[in-house]
Amino acid sequence: MSKRIRTAILGASGYTGADLVRLALTHPQIEITALAANSKAGQSMAAIWPHFAPYQLPDLTAAEAVDFAAIDVVFGCLPHAASASLLSTIPDCTVIDLSADFRLKSAETYAQWYGNAHPSPHLLPAAVYGLSEFARDDLVEAQLIACPGCYPTAVLLALVPLLEAGLITPARITINALSGVTGAGRAAKEANLFAEVAEAVHPYGLGHHRHMPEIEQQLGLAAGEAVTISFTPHLIPINRGELVTCIVEMAAGETPASLRAALASRYAEEPFVHLLPEGKAPATRMVRGSNHAVVNVFPDRIAGRAIVVAAIDNLVKGSSGQAIQNMNIALGLPETMGLEAAPLFP
Amino acid sequence: MSKRIRTAILGASGYTGADLVRLALTHPQIEITALAANSKAGQSMAAIWPHFAPYQLPDLTAAEAVDFAAIDVVFGCLPHAASASLLSTIPDCTVIDLSADFRLKSAETYAQWYGNAHPSPHLLPAAVYGLSEFARDDLVEAQLIACPGCYPTAVLLALVPLLEAGLITPARITINALSGVTGAGRAAKEANLFAEVAEAVHPYGLGHHRHMPEIEQQLGLAAGEAVTISFTPHLIPINRGELVTCIVEMAAGETPASLRAALASRYAEEPFVHLLPEGKAPATRMVRGSNHAVVNVFPDRIAGRAIVVAAIDNLVKGSSGQAIQNMNIALGLPETMGLEAAPLFP
Amino acid sequence: MSKRIRTAILGASGYTGADLVRLALTHPQIEITALAANSKAGQSMAAIWPHFAPYQLPDLTAAEAVDFAAIDVVFGCLPHAASASLLSTIPDCTVIDLSADFRLKSAETYAQWYGNAHPSPHLLPAAVYGLSEFARDDLVEAQLIACPGCYPTAVLLALVPLLEAGLITPARITINALSGVTGAGRAAKEANLFAEVAEAVHPYGLGHHRHMPEIEQQLGLAAGEAVTISFTPHLIPINRGELVTCIVEMAAGETPASLRAALASRYAEEPFVHLLPEGKAPATRMVRGSNHAVVNVFPDRIAGRAIVVAAIDNLVKGSSGQAIQNMNIALGLPETMGLEAAPLFP
Amino acid sequence: MSKRIRTAILGASGYTGADLVRLALTHPQIEITALAANSKAGQSMAAIWPHFAPYQLPDLTAAEAVDFAAIDVVFGCLPHAASASLLSTIPDCTVIDLSADFRLKSAETYAQWYGNAHPSPHLLPAAVYGLSEFARDDLVEAQLIACPGCYPTAVLLALVPLLEAGLITPARITINALSGVTGAGRAAKEANLFAEVAEAVHPYGLGHHRHMPEIEQQLGLAAGEAVTISFTPHLIPINRGELVTCIVEMAAGETPASLRAALASRYAEEPFVHLLPEGKAPATRMVRGSNHAVVNVFPDRIAGRAIVVAAIDNLVKGSSGQAIQNMNIALGLPETMGLEAAPLFP
Repeated sequence: MSKRIRTAILGASGYTGADLVRLALTHPQIEITALAANSKAGQSMAAIWPHFAPYQLPDLTAAEAVDFAAIDVVFGCLPHAASASLLSTIPDCTVIDLSADFRLKSAETYAQWYGNAHPSPHLLPAAVYGLSEFARDDLVEAQLIACPGCYPTAVLLALVPLLEAGLITPARITINALSGVTGAGRAAKEANLFAEVAEAVHPYGLGHHRHMPEIEQQLGLAAGEAVTISFTPHLIPINRGELVTCIVEMAAGETPASLRAALASRYAEEPFVHLLPEGKAPATRMVRGSNHAVVNVFPDRIAGRAIVVAAIDNLVKGSSGQAIQNMNIALGLPETMGLEAAPLFP
Repeated sequence: MSKRIRTAILGASGYTGADLVRLALTHPQIEITALAANSKAGQSMAAIWPHFAPYQLPDLTAAEAVDFAAIDVVFGCLPHAASASLLSTIPDCTVIDLSADFRLKSAETYAQWYGNAHPSPHLLPAAVYGLSEFARDDLVEAQLIACPGCYPTAVLLALVPLLEAGLITPARITINALSGVTGAGRAAKEANLFAEVAEAVHPYGLGHHRHMPEIEQQLGLAAGEAVTISFTPHLIPINRGELVTCIVEMAAGETPASLRAALASRYAEEPFVHLLPEGKAPATRMVRGSNHAVVNVFPDRIAGRAIVVAAIDNLVKGSSGQAIQNMNIALGLPETMGLEAAPLFP
Repeated sequence: MSKRIRTAILGASGYTGADLVRLALTHPQIEITALAANSKAGQSMAAIWPHFAPYQLPDLTAAEAVDFAAIDVVFGCLPHAASASLLSTIPDCTVIDLSADFRLKSAETYAQWYGNAHPSPHLLPAAVYGLSEFARDDLVEAQLIACPGCYPTAVLLALVPLLEAGLITPARITINALSGVTGAGRAAKEANLFAEVAEAVHPYGLGHHRHMPEIEQQLGLAAGEAVTISFTPHLIPINRGELVTCIVEMAAGETPASLRAALASRYAEEPFVHLLPEGKAPATRMVRGSNHAVVNVFPDRIAGRAIVVAAIDNLVKGSSGQAIQNMNIALGLPETMGLEAAPLFP
Repeated sequence: MSKRIRTAILGASGYTGADLVRLALTHPQIEITALAANSKAGQSMAAIWPHFAPYQLPDLTAAEAVDFAAIDVVFGCLPHAASASLLSTIPDCTVIDLSADFRLKSAETYAQWYGNAHPSPHLLPAAVYGLSEFARDDLVEAQLIACPGCYPTAVLLALVPLLEAGLITPARITINALSGVTGAGRAAKEANLFAEVAEAVHPYGLGHHRHMPEIEQQLGLAAGEAVTISFTPHLIPINRGELVTCIVEMAAGETPASLRAALASRYAEEPFVHLLPEGKAPATRMVRGSNHAVVNVFPDRIAGRAIVVAAIDNLVKGSSGQAIQNMNIALGLPETMGLEAAPLFP
């Protein structure tokens, strides 16, 4: 194929970066031009990711050593703060950031939740919040795309159409979330050792998880008013997968059936978001390794409430897959290009 | 030791029955006199439970073949309906039932949720609901003890003291629950195969799980009024362990700190229920294999609400361990006898 | 694309069948024309495989109801005996069998190990044993292809080049094998329940596993003499993946380095078989979900011996992926078509 | 109980130390007097091991701060070298070391395999190698006990009686071993992260694992001649459990049945070592959390050979449980005291 997108992936030593490489390898238009990871600069990808041994890939370099003049698209898989600091210096590329740095519109909110001043607040107004299915118009030819967090992706796919249509109220949205361990990254921490995580489950970040303000910002935009949520994530012993169970209060006259109808209509033509048949519970095994999301609505036993459930693969639709989906949209490519692989089950 | 409790365990071929045998083996007063499992009658325990190979145990018989005249205590680990049918015919034993048959006080509610008429409704008034820490007076010399379900045990330990003291309101109690696979029993079903469950998570029983009316009955007694709950259980890939995350609305003037203080006071002398230090999240790995429960309270981001979390081992405090605890109380033995083993971690 | 291969997959309700569907969905030349599973005839694929919910697939039919006149390629994922009985009746298709029925050249050996007379022994001479990398000439335009078993695939990729070149002797080849649970199929058996398999490991089929005669047949062909092996498989708690650790005796003068050199040479141009760098141990996580195999050689502490290790995904290179690879070769397509996806890690 | 053994556990912040604490808590004679872990000195046990929250335990101190004059028994769960350096300075205690430091009789061999000169070679002659079932006479009143490694424990229980009786030859003993992750300790290393280990398996330490010389030393003593083994360990995704599959060559005239008979006779009265019924494969789930070992013998397909399999819990019989068993023997207590708990399955 003659046309090629010269691509740099920054932060290629983490799970998100690796999954981006995995997907990029079979994307028909992406040329993996540069791979950066400062702590591993000079090493081969096969040395740190043996599953890439069969593939020809550039060696890792320092991010500062990448010749961005020869790059069309930059994917940033760096930690927050570091990401904005670096990405703000890159000229003339389409920048797709998977960190948290450009998701919040308010630099004040960012500072409050992330504990540091925003490195480049002047870029916030132009950054496009890249929940692909709800941002297509803004994504076309976007220069700076902030890919949503994994939990926000699942929650927003479940709730935004319902809030936008006024079928649910913004009061008392209560989200229980379950995530696989890759969400915690590849850093060597005792809490993430196999022996600590296997055969175990616990909640974390109770009342103060950093995805909260992001979810509230986007739900607020959908509701047209400020939204405060309850959000309790739990760590479960799986590698990939994220499931959110949202308890919502319905607007007067609405029913789980009317909510299902709204989602059915909203997602009927979507290639990656699927309303399941009535009564079928979303499960992470339905989407593992793929860019798909599955959602469904159930009646709650408490009158006037419904349970909206969504499942994604946190590394794909919740991260690297959506990043490529956003690139496809931004560059005018078919939106599903390189993302066609079916889920891996078992 | 001269004094011995001659014991029969009915349903010894299931996970609950096996865990009861495990605990009974080291209980200083229990003599395992008879083991019954109709589908496996005639087989040795080692044949169906190889981890018991080192132990001398009676062979399995049909339940009807047990000589109950030579039995002091009967533990019923049978499916609902079958349990009440059989247990109602046994004279002069202390009967400790781990099925659902004697938990609900209303035979109508039972019929509605379990799909069959109650086999022996005349026994319901005398059955003691055996949440050990809240039923001691009634348990002493009780003849028929209904051990709570696993989810109810965790939820009630978390919420009953708060409702009784009026610190939380009975409105909109929203419970998210996570359970290991042993809760589904040892029946060979496709849904419980390793390849279906591993690396996966999903909710089930949405809006209609059978533990709902039991939880509502007991919370209602604590609150002094009818309670309707939201309850969403999820299946996670672990063998043992159950964690409930309860979102509750506090009474006016109450705070997470006042809720913690109430639990601290209520459980200060309890050998098996433990309030964790402030900010420490309960985790199933803290209680694996043991009769302990751990609880804690956290502020919710939505004003006026709190998050109360509890973790137990579903097969021990949620089932067989609590059954032995109840036997100890009923017979006037030290309550912790045979239940001293510390959790197994990792 | 105008050219299409009309394909029927028989046995689409098992894990092997499902993984074939997964791969077929993104193969640019395969049209999934018919899906058969007698026990599930009439159901939709999404009903029994929710991860296929996003895809348009034919409903399941009985195998006998497939109109084979409209089919170009038949993949058989049926149990042994049933497979040969059915496949022997299909005219004018390329038949690719994933069962054991056409792997052994001797109907007597088959009867001895599988316990039934071979249903169609007249077809055995023409069946091509489809270890792709060693059967390309025979596979072109083959009408009946017997895909190797999963364990044989891993063992043969490790040892055939060494035996053919006389670098190792056929004496005392000792194979220790580890397999994920999907190898046992989707049948609901107590032994395959999550609670039985998780946190556990054990050997099985000690001394009499059915893959033994197949391995011996093929190693014998490579060695030019009869070979008797030691083979001990173990079940480990993973979904996918197979690893074989082969202890072999080297011919006089050979060393692990010379063995490595032979494998390096043999597999230098292979797209799916990879010799790892010296000292790097093969791991199943390097190949998960992909058609790749990784191999390496290590010195044994006992003089004159070497340890040859290989890892594959049992459902892909060990089954469905190799079946598609064989189809590609048989039909003159690029051998890697539809098999380009990189491994899924984590 | 009036009589108490004042006990110090050094290295209580590791998995081995924690499992020793778990067992010590229910041992009727052990008083946990001091717990040491230099890197965590000053912290409470509940802070680093939340599953001990319900228990009253001393805070952690530096090992040097322990008042050994008030201690009867010291358990050393320290890394090698550090262990011998410290333990060699302790006067007048029964010292039970779980490190590798006193297992090898030759300081030269130790230096060769562990990479450092032995810190206290003068103590090696008096150290008792504490494979309990084979060292009872030497253990009584022993002052320095070297507990075997986990792999050696399993291998030696399987093979020593056969070698001692001359039923197998010392030639070409080929051991395949599988271990859970706790064997690697609690250090935060990338290789032991959940996402690296789950859904995966690989061999490690190929040809140079440190348990090799220990196994060879002890097998050599049993055989009466030097023994060189093949030993290939693999890491599997479980917390606890170790399984060894040993391929051995039988002496002339011997059969798997005669080997089984020898093990049956040898272990008939042993409380913790059990020969399984003919044909029943040892499995780690049979021993999880307990001090039991299970063994069995199977015919190999290669004539003249047999397959001897053993399974243990690496943290109990392979480490902390055997340490307590050794203490019981050394102090003249009933050998099973504190180790009666049945295995935890599932």
